[in-house]
Amino acid sequence: MSLHLREVTGVADDVRFDWTRGARARVPEVVLAESKTIEQLLDIAQQALARQQGVLMTRVQAEKAAVLAEQLPGQVHHHAQARTVVVADQPPESLSQERPVRVAIVAAGTSDAPVVAEIEQALLYLGEPSARYVDVGVAGLWRLTELADELSEYSLLIAVAGMEGALFSVLAGLVPTPVIAVPVSVGYGVGAGGHVALNSALSSCVPGIAVVNIDNGFGAAALAVKLLGIHARA
Amino acid sequence: MSLHLREVTGVADDVRFDWTRGARARVPEVVLAESKTIEQLLDIAQQALARQQGVLMTRVQAEKAAVLAEQLPGQVHHHAQARTVVVADQPPESLSQERPVRVAIVAAGTSDAPVVAEIEQALLYLGEPSARYVDVGVAGLWRLTELADELSEYSLLIAVAGMEGALFSVLAGLVPTPVIAVPVSVGYGVGAGGHVALNSALSSCVPGIAVVNIDNGFGAAALAVKLLGIHARA
Amino acid sequence: MSLHLREVTGVADDVRFDWTRGARARVPEVVLAESKTIEQLLDIAQQALARQQGVLMTRVQAEKAAVLAEQLPGQVHHHAQARTVVVADQPPESLSQERPVRVAIVAAGTSDAPVVAEIEQALLYLGEPSARYVDVGVAGLWRLTELADELSEYSLLIAVAGMEGALFSVLAGLVPTPVIAVPVSVGYGVGAGGHVALNSALSSCVPGIAVVNIDNGFGAAALAVKLLGIHARA
Amino acid sequence: MSLHLREVTGVADDVRFDWTRGARARVPEVVLAESKTIEQLLDIAQQALARQQGVLMTRVQAEKAAVLAEQLPGQVHHHAQARTVVVADQPPESLSQERPVRVAIVAAGTSDAPVVAEIEQALLYLGEPSARYVDVGVAGLWRLTELADELSEYSLLIAVAGMEGALFSVLAGLVPTPVIAVPVSVGYGVGAGGHVALNSALSSCVPGIAVVNIDNGFGAAALAVKLLGIHARA
Amino acid sequence: MSLHLREVTGVADDVRFDWTRGARARVPEVVLAESKTIEQLLDIAQQALARQQGVLMTRVQAEKAAVLAEQLPGQVHHHAQARTVVVADQPPESLSQERPVRVAIVAAGTSDAPVVAEIEQALLYLGEPSARYVDVGVAGLWRLTELADELSEYSLLIAVAGMEGALFSVLAGLVPTPVIAVPVSVGYGVGAGGHVALNSALSSCVPGIAVVNIDNGFGAAALAVKLLGIHARA
Amino acid sequence: MSLHLREVTGVADDVRFDWTRGARARVPEVVLAESKTIEQLLDIAQQALARQQGVLMTRVQAEKAAVLAEQLPGQVHHHAQARTVVVADQPPESLSQERPVRVAIVAAGTSDAPVVAEIEQALLYLGEPSARYVDVGVAGLWRLTELADELSEYSLLIAVAGMEGALFSVLAGLVPTPVIAVPVSVGYGVGAGGHVALNSALSSCVPGIAVVNIDNGFGAAALAVKLLGIHARA
Amino acid sequence: MSLHLREVTGVADDVRFDWTRGARARVPEVVLAESKTIEQLLDIAQQALARQQGVLMTRVQAEKAAVLAEQLPGQVHHHAQARTVVVADQPPESLSQERPVRVAIVAAGTSDAPVVAEIEQALLYLGEPSARYVDVGVAGLWRLTELADELSEYSLLIAVAGMEGALFSVLAGLVPTPVIAVPVSVGYGVGAGGHVALNSALSSCVPGIAVVNIDNGFGAAALAVKLLGIHARA
Amino acid sequence: MSLHLREVTGVADDVRFDWTRGARARVPEVVLAESKTIEQLLDIAQQALARQQGVLMTRVQAEKAAVLAEQLPGQVHHHAQARTVVVADQPPESLSQERPVRVAIVAAGTSDAPVVAEIEQALLYLGEPSARYVDVGVAGLWRLTELADELSEYSLLIAVAGMEGALFSVLAGLVPTPVIAVPVSVGYGVGAGGHVALNSALSSCVPGIAVVNIDNGFGAAALAVKLLGIHARA
Repeated sequence: MSLHLREVTGVADDVRFDWTRGARARVPEVVLAESKTIEQLLDIAQQALARQQGVLMTRVQAEKAAVLAEQLPGQVHHHAQARTVVVADQPPESLSQERPVRVAIVAAGTSDAPVVAEIEQALLYLGEPSARYVDVGVAGLWRLTELADELSEYSLLIAVAGMEGALFSVLAGLVPTPVIAVPVSVGYGVGAGGHVALNSALSSCVPGIAVVNIDNGFGAAALAVKLLGIHARA
Repeated sequence: MSLHLREVTGVADDVRFDWTRGARARVPEVVLAESKTIEQLLDIAQQALARQQGVLMTRVQAEKAAVLAEQLPGQVHHHAQARTVVVADQPPESLSQERPVRVAIVAAGTSDAPVVAEIEQALLYLGEPSARYVDVGVAGLWRLTELADELSEYSLLIAVAGMEGALFSVLAGLVPTPVIAVPVSVGYGVGAGGHVALNSALSSCVPGIAVVNIDNGFGAAALAVKLLGIHARA
Repeated sequence: MSLHLREVTGVADDVRFDWTRGARARVPEVVLAESKTIEQLLDIAQQALARQQGVLMTRVQAEKAAVLAEQLPGQVHHHAQARTVVVADQPPESLSQERPVRVAIVAAGTSDAPVVAEIEQALLYLGEPSARYVDVGVAGLWRLTELADELSEYSLLIAVAGMEGALFSVLAGLVPTPVIAVPVSVGYGVGAGGHVALNSALSSCVPGIAVVNIDNGFGAAALAVKLLGIHARA
Repeated sequence: MSLHLREVTGVADDVRFDWTRGARARVPEVVLAESKTIEQLLDIAQQALARQQGVLMTRVQAEKAAVLAEQLPGQVHHHAQARTVVVADQPPESLSQERPVRVAIVAAGTSDAPVVAEIEQALLYLGEPSARYVDVGVAGLWRLTELADELSEYSLLIAVAGMEGALFSVLAGLVPTPVIAVPVSVGYGVGAGGHVALNSALSSCVPGIAVVNIDNGFGAAALAVKLLGIHARA
Repeated sequence: MSLHLREVTGVADDVRFDWTRGARARVPEVVLAESKTIEQLLDIAQQALARQQGVLMTRVQAEKAAVLAEQLPGQVHHHAQARTVVVADQPPESLSQERPVRVAIVAAGTSDAPVVAEIEQALLYLGEPSARYVDVGVAGLWRLTELADELSEYSLLIAVAGMEGALFSVLAGLVPTPVIAVPVSVGYGVGAGGHVALNSALSSCVPGIAVVNIDNGFGAAALAVKLLGIHARA
Repeated sequence: MSLHLREVTGVADDVRFDWTRGARARVPEVVLAESKTIEQLLDIAQQALARQQGVLMTRVQAEKAAVLAEQLPGQVHHHAQARTVVVADQPPESLSQERPVRVAIVAAGTSDAPVVAEIEQALLYLGEPSARYVDVGVAGLWRLTELADELSEYSLLIAVAGMEGALFSVLAGLVPTPVIAVPVSVGYGVGAGGHVALNSALSSCVPGIAVVNIDNGFGAAALAVKLLGIHARA
Repeated sequence: MSLHLREVTGVADDVRFDWTRGARARVPEVVLAESKTIEQLLDIAQQALARQQGVLMTRVQAEKAAVLAEQLPGQVHHHAQARTVVVADQPPESLSQERPVRVAIVAAGTSDAPVVAEIEQALLYLGEPSARYVDVGVAGLWRLTELADELSEYSLLIAVAGMEGALFSVLAGLVPTPVIAVPVSVGYGVGAGGHVALNSALSSCVPGIAVVNIDNGFGAAALAVKLLGIHARA
Repeated sequence: MSLHLREVTGVADDVRFDWTRGARARVPEVVLAESKTIEQLLDIAQQALARQQGVLMTRVQAEKAAVLAEQLPGQVHHHAQARTVVVADQPPESLSQERPVRVAIVAAGTSDAPVVAEIEQALLYLGEPSARYVDVGVAGLWRLTELADELSEYSLLIAVAGMEGALFSVLAGLVPTPVIAVPVSVGYGVGAGGHVALNSALSSCVPGIAVVNIDNGFGAAALAVKLLGIHARA
């Protein structure tokens, strides 16, 4: 083979965004902003707007969000606690407001709030509104058992917990609704990093919990949307 | 407090089976037989038959299955490769045969066969028939891409893979159908125990994969049945 | 220095049993039999009988127990499920039978039975009878909540659980009684070896759980006895 | 189900503090402040004062403590080394000063001081005064053996150590008093993070040590208070 | 032995650079700058220039690069994204521009860009130009399959991926060209640090992947150059 | 979708061997026999013979090899130490005998012999003869340095070592020839399982070592054959 | 290069024993028998006898020792508990009996006996007699403190302990004599495999402990002999 | 027991420095400054000076050293690279300058310089001068082999290496001198934190290496001084 450097350079347009993923795989590609440069993010944002397609960015540092907002005024919808940015002509709330609520997010403690917010924002972006039940950890079991009937009304529950993650097992044992478990990196000592919560979800004595990666709020939202699509095809 | 030993003994009838879990949580309690004694298994089996309720046992060693079959002739349905036993008046196949197939099991290699079989048996026991696509790992990608349209027809896919578990990401990127990932403890060196496959599923670049514990065939089946129930309630 | 081999040999009488530990530290030395030879066990047993002091051995393989029983007829009290041997003129039950029951053992599943039995035997040997509540895992929460008042009557609870160990948090959140957590090596995949249960106990969202090593039934019993002695000194 | 977003919003009042836990489980809920926002902390503090109930916050960063103090003058009692805040009309010292000292804290080195301080503050908040013996690690064994008789006078010992945590075994072998072990994240290389100290406590050759999570000063205090309550019920 | 301090001091000239390694082992010694002081780096740079030999430094912090550039104007070629410095009279590009391109770098995402840049710079320094294909991860498989024929034209591929690293298996299964896998420390939760990507490469179901350490761009380049030299000797 | 079980069963012919991989990816599919049943192995063997294509099986337990040999007399070539079986009309040696030796296997100790044998058998099956230098670990460095010139004559070296794997760095620093590192699971304590040897190869101070999984003899052979093909295309 | 297979075969005499290591590095090469075949062991044994040089084998399985003894009657000295074989015309005891005892082995429990025996046999083989103090763990501290003066008489102490390894710190804090720590793989739960004991030795609060690998009795003996040689050169 | 808070306070003078350790255990207590407050360090420094005894502090952050120097002018000897402070009337160099050099420090790379400096400063403080050989890693083996005879002249070698730590095995195989291995936390990917270097030292194929904790420069110096004392007692 004998390609020379100059020719090859033309081949390498670095960002190859998968713009058709939404159609092909039901959930569009999103941007994990944490380790991308502001130049890369701006490039993707502009491509998205040019295609009249929105784009969701997760784990966006505050400074990057500020630059994006400055460069694309009115088209950058930033949620500080969730660390998300939606690049679109309209805010994500406008999309889902009138639809019935099929998903509830159930979180063990107030420290889980950032992950809860990421799930909510991602669900909104995907057109799915959600309800929120925070601070219902198993230490005060009454908070959970008194909600059992209400929670059973939803099509799907997303449980969010750090530390020992006992919420996952207790919730899945209480209600017939399917549960998606999102372990959270809240904790210290052996609980640092969220690995105990993750492993608790995976080795739960209640079978049938769908587990996603630690702090992976968007993943939980994407899974929820895919699962809620099941009945559309049956 | 002053209970005396004799009184207390009466309190302690060791097996407290959760016979109403099927009604409450959609999937009945099953028995993880591996670390139970044959006496405990027989006890549960007899309680089940007395209630005219079947019971599924998983990870049943061959010798325990033989004793059960001997003690309860005609009522113990043992699947050697799956290492499952269904205690019931009728074999599990009789339950689900006439229903449409909504779930497909997609496995990377023939070494994953025992876990595939556990999923199939558990699905049958739960009344859900399944199709099976084995030996379609990513090393020969054509095996998977040529099936993409066919696999898109199912409501739900259960992907089964050991080693590096690349199947999970590739499959979830190819089809819009939701994917449950079952990592398998096939591998050696860094791949021993199935942890790489598990972590690949959790950290996949394709969001929206529902992960269960390593080798947890029953868990995947239970999750599938819960998820297929979503549309019934919407 | 110039000691010669012959002299030194006299110094090295290998077993230096700590016969006064019971008096000094409230709980006598026990023998972890697993990695000791039958000769070493017999030697200790004979020293104990010569001193008219009993001795407890834990993790005794069946064959070793048989040899001990053969060599010391009537003085070896073996419990197969607990894998314990008490070497004494009288069986351990004879010691504690008339005392009120202050400790309850609460176990998540029937697979935890061997550890439960070790705790019971150790408590009996230490003169403390106990009550037992097995198979009350959180998957069927009603089994636990309906016992809450009864369990609150005891001075101390010993909770025993493998897999994700959610029992520890739920129990400690339900009752005011102090809880000792004994993680059990029942589980597979990420749950193998009991590490998830251990870490759940340690990182519980309910503070104030006293944790001991995985499968450490004797340790839990020893801790219980030490703790029950607190009020005697106050 | 068809709840709409607006209605649901009313349900989700984020902080559901477990105000009755003190009555139910003997130790009230405390606030792990580290990953909470200042808004969440202020909200809880104000609820507490409104109920004329104090509240303890642990792992409070200095800046958050300053904001709390500014907003609630005279009602925020901050201990810098312990990183604790007690929100109450009176300082925690006022509660316990006249009671006999039943608990001693025994720490291996001066580097353990922050954890020692957290234990002391938590005990004061729970109404239990304590004595302190710092810098008595096993490297200079005489420091510990000469205290053996004095330490035996207490009802309960809380041992605090990082690095290899040999203090736990040595102390528990020296005195009959029950020992709570608090591993500390002081160390480097293999000792980093406190895991060696934790595992030393769990696998100690002296049975009967009650272990809590690394750096979990409040957990040790809560456990102590629960255990000291045992004799009150017998 | 009786050397005295003064004599010994003369022996200890700290930097013993291996200037002949290029001739002996085909790839010259490079400098891992991360944990070296600016004094050490300047010393090596000056030695290199004095020998009219260039030197490559990797993982150079921006401030150190600035000091070097200031001290050795015109001779320090810094690449910010790659974090490399080449100390030489001419920029590295001048060396390799006219040679045919035998190596292609294939990267899963734009977050891998810094490692891609380090590989490119190192290859240039070693006289080997390369082509670049970025953002072709398996989530959008079409991006990779449509490149299969083009990629097969190269002598060697260097695959760069973080998260679950499925790219390594898929690429190696698609083309006959040998693949060097460079895992990248992009990811979070179980994917943090790049260990999942590394282990995926090592336990791939496609045998024959050459793996290097996480983020080791230079190592991949050095391996490529050594391997491309094989045919020169046959 | 409404496929019924009967139809689906026809779809599921479990073994989908990738018979064209040799042509597509240069190295044919091989069979990891360890976790396959004897029925699965026989099925593959018969398919291979029917296509007049040989097949290599690795990690074949002795009993399975015996059954294969019995069922397919004269066509099963078993190497006990390597634990390999070649199913073919002719033994693997017949293929490669007349070709020049381009690869040398260099092993640290005699305990590495099984992995060395697997590499040799795999290379023979792939048509590549090899030389072997065993027991040349760095403890007796003279064994290695006196071979340096001879080893430099080969196109490629495969280094095999367990324990601390210092051989990889020393060898790669001594000769210009590229080195493939195969860590071996020989060792105990921290060295158990081969992880130290693996990590030593990956973090070597000598850049440019191609690493494969622990005990992965076939992987090293496959990589060698792919790499030796580079010059054919240049 | 074009060596042909036949020539190369002559090069590969597999066992290259380092017979001059004793002279060069003070301690001769020994044979880790565990993963070697009986043929390899016999070959080495016969080479040793032919050179009138003895050889020590460690971790020898009983069956291998029996075959060796049968093949080389009177020249194989097997120690069952230590799992060592010395191949020599005379038993190892004959070498060292008349020399003063400079090394004492101090072991925490009787379960450590096999490692103690390996150290003793290895020391004898290397010409160094030793004294033994077993069962002096820190749970009964008096056993250790009453020996402090006696132990201070030796030139060197080898401490042997499993579980939490507190013995290492306590011993090194009590006596001025240098301590070699040998962690032992006795323990369960977090203590399994000896890693806690190892890490305790490494992160001891008493600096100056020389640590060797888990269960590495021979390594401790070799280190002791090297260290005792220091004074000979000063 | 009924001690009251006030009395107890008198007991708790926090710093209990072990001033007699030098006499008892040959090496005096040193201060690990990293996690101590400046108040604690000043307190110890003043106690030391009051006793006319010096004290060594390790891992002293620059700001703490500056405060100490300001408070105790002329008596604080700070070495920036080593991060050590010696509090004494005279600098540590003054103590050892006239003694013969018995210890050599051999380091793999210039990145190891801070640990080398800590060893040197600690040895000086303990009255033992040393020679230094830096940048002699195995990648350029000639650097090490040409020093073999010179290094054999010392009584003791301290080897310092990060990354894969091959230096430990190579050095110990080359010279008869005893080797203390100090693993260094230099490296990235699998080599991060120094664990690979540590485990390489522990599982070396050359028996008889004395290992200390990662980055534990003082520990190596303390061990060296203890070992050099052996011949004084024989």
